[in-house]
Amino acid sequence: MTQRKVMICGDLAWAHEECKQLFDGLAEVVRMDSQTRDDFLAGLKPGGKYADTVGIYRHNTSADRIGVFDKPVVAALSEAGVKWVAHNGAGYDQIDVLECRAKGITVSNTPGAVDDATATTALFLLVSCLRHFSHAERALRAGQWKNPLSAGKTHDLTGRTLGILGLGGIGLRLAHLVRAFPMEIVYHSRRPNPDAPSWCRYVEKLDDFWGACDVLSVHVPLRPETVHLVGEKEIRKMRKGSIIINTARGKVIDEEAMIRALEDGHLSSVGLDVYPDEPNVNPRLLEFPQNALLPHMGTENQDSQRKMEVRALTNVRDFLVQGAGKDVVPEMVSKL
Amino acid sequence: MTQRKVMICGDLAWAHEECKQLFDGLAEVVRMDSQTRDDFLAGLKPGGKYADTVGIYRHNTSADRIGVFDKPVVAALSEAGVKWVAHNGAGYDQIDVLECRAKGITVSNTPGAVDDATATTALFLLVSCLRHFSHAERALRAGQWKNPLSAGKTHDLTGRTLGILGLGGIGLRLAHLVRAFPMEIVYHSRRPNPDAPSWCRYVEKLDDFWGACDVLSVHVPLRPETVHLVGEKEIRKMRKGSIIINTARGKVIDEEAMIRALEDGHLSSVGLDVYPDEPNVNPRLLEFPQNALLPHMGTENQDSQRKMEVRALTNVRDFLVQGAGKDVVPEMVSKL
Repeated sequence: MTQRKVMICGDLAWAHEECKQLFDGLAEVVRMDSQTRDDFLAGLKPGGKYADTVGIYRHNTSADRIGVFDKPVVAALSEAGVKWVAHNGAGYDQIDVLECRAKGITVSNTPGAVDDATATTALFLLVSCLRHFSHAERALRAGQWKNPLSAGKTHDLTGRTLGILGLGGIGLRLAHLVRAFPMEIVYHSRRPNPDAPSWCRYVEKLDDFWGACDVLSVHVPLRPETVHLVGEKEIRKMRKGSIIINTARGKVIDEEAMIRALEDGHLSSVGLDVYPDEPNVNPRLLEFPQNALLPHMGTENQDSQRKMEVRALTNVRDFLVQGAGKDVVPEMVSKL
Repeated sequence: MTQRKVMICGDLAWAHEECKQLFDGLAEVVRMDSQTRDDFLAGLKPGGKYADTVGIYRHNTSADRIGVFDKPVVAALSEAGVKWVAHNGAGYDQIDVLECRAKGITVSNTPGAVDDATATTALFLLVSCLRHFSHAERALRAGQWKNPLSAGKTHDLTGRTLGILGLGGIGLRLAHLVRAFPMEIVYHSRRPNPDAPSWCRYVEKLDDFWGACDVLSVHVPLRPETVHLVGEKEIRKMRKGSIIINTARGKVIDEEAMIRALEDGHLSSVGLDVYPDEPNVNPRLLEFPQNALLPHMGTENQDSQRKMEVRALTNVRDFLVQGAGKDVVPEMVSKL
């Protein structure tokens, strides 16, 4: 009998020997080394270098070479016998999960492992926008000390209201971090989060949500129904001088509407870690010195990366040992 | 009888009418408008524009024109009949407080009012240094996305140990903010802070303190005995790869020793809001891309500025009404 394989598809800091040990007696470990999609698809065919792959560890960096896991890729995975794709990351918009489900492939992600690092990123952007620290740091480095800054335009966090759009693990973690100040917290999700403490006030109607906060922080996944969820109409319902923080996905916000609101002062600043067309950044965002702009650093640190890798690899391993891993994405089990 | 005066000496956002109302029936309000020290000293003489001043609201910005409150100024204040100097700020190293005490002038500051904004600044620098966010933002703005960054050099805050040097109001506030992650907290002060929660571990001997943390945050005032308190020997006792955060005063750290430790990698980064010779910044600090450098933004925001102004003005007013204000600095009452 041919030995089944686990494929490492995209960045993983572990040494090959470490991986082999983790799957010792369970599966052969192969690294996806294709430089093109064609080579990848060919490798999945019977007799190919990836044939007999049953489980995949996946990182978004693989898309640079073979593209996203769209219908053609999912079809090839299915024909090769893949049953589990363990994605490393919270957002799995690069995987056609409904197609995976239709083909009997389960998709898992690493939700809890990203909460701490991503919420910390949102907190950093929040402080930077309220206090104009990004602008201040650039002024210092340009030899201007704090001359271009104006304290009259900046604020403490304490006592202001944070609106969390999507109170999952990351949003809840951010709520706990800013509660230390304290900020007031309101949130909107499709339904109330049973884990939310009493000081997180649920706003059931989205229409009532936009005007209820000084700072909006976006924490919904990118799905067809969340594209431009924060659009022109929604931004205009926010308070004048509001701030938007986005550490989720760029396309959740209508970028053009957001820039118009910065131009006419309806928004005082935005703190962004994500953009609609990464790694490209709309240069108009750089024209507002008070904006804080990070290059998708959400989970970029060795502690969280290690946590996420362990989690994703464990999900593949559990699938091999027990027939199922944890962290199955909701689309796999929700009603269609 | 000539009406006694209150002098507004340095920046104050309040309108003159607002000030007049606050001191209505208590004192005449005069703004210090001297462009030189000579003009200021002349104004304090009998018959001068500042004669009969009994209380002073002071902001560090006045030093740009008339210099700091050193012995010659204190002598002139004393002869003019000044009894109270209400300094706006936590650090009052620009006032010779022992000379004030010898001349019967009480000095107050605004300790509690600065805690929130300054601790938030320290938190921002702490996140930036651990995650290399300052570097990341500059990379994005230079069109390099995150290419120069390496996640392998960065860390989560959670689980790491913060060492607080000087657990007064600001240090304690920072402790509460990072406890939300949680970070572990150790601290050294001249004596244990009775307000410290049980999770803040007191390290009695300074010698044992330096090696007990991953990140050191400085929160001691600048006094003759705290100049270069963090020097070559102390930095070398810190763990390899440590981070130093300073939002107190630049001279508390031996800057040359700190830069040497950055050069040989003993320190991984520093997050600074204060410098020994402000507004000048040692250009060598800019050579380490992972450093986070702010231009003394500690309390720069309208909410905290307002809080500080109200506090300092209230101290002058209380002196006029009751004979004494609050927030008297410790040197006024400590044993000599």
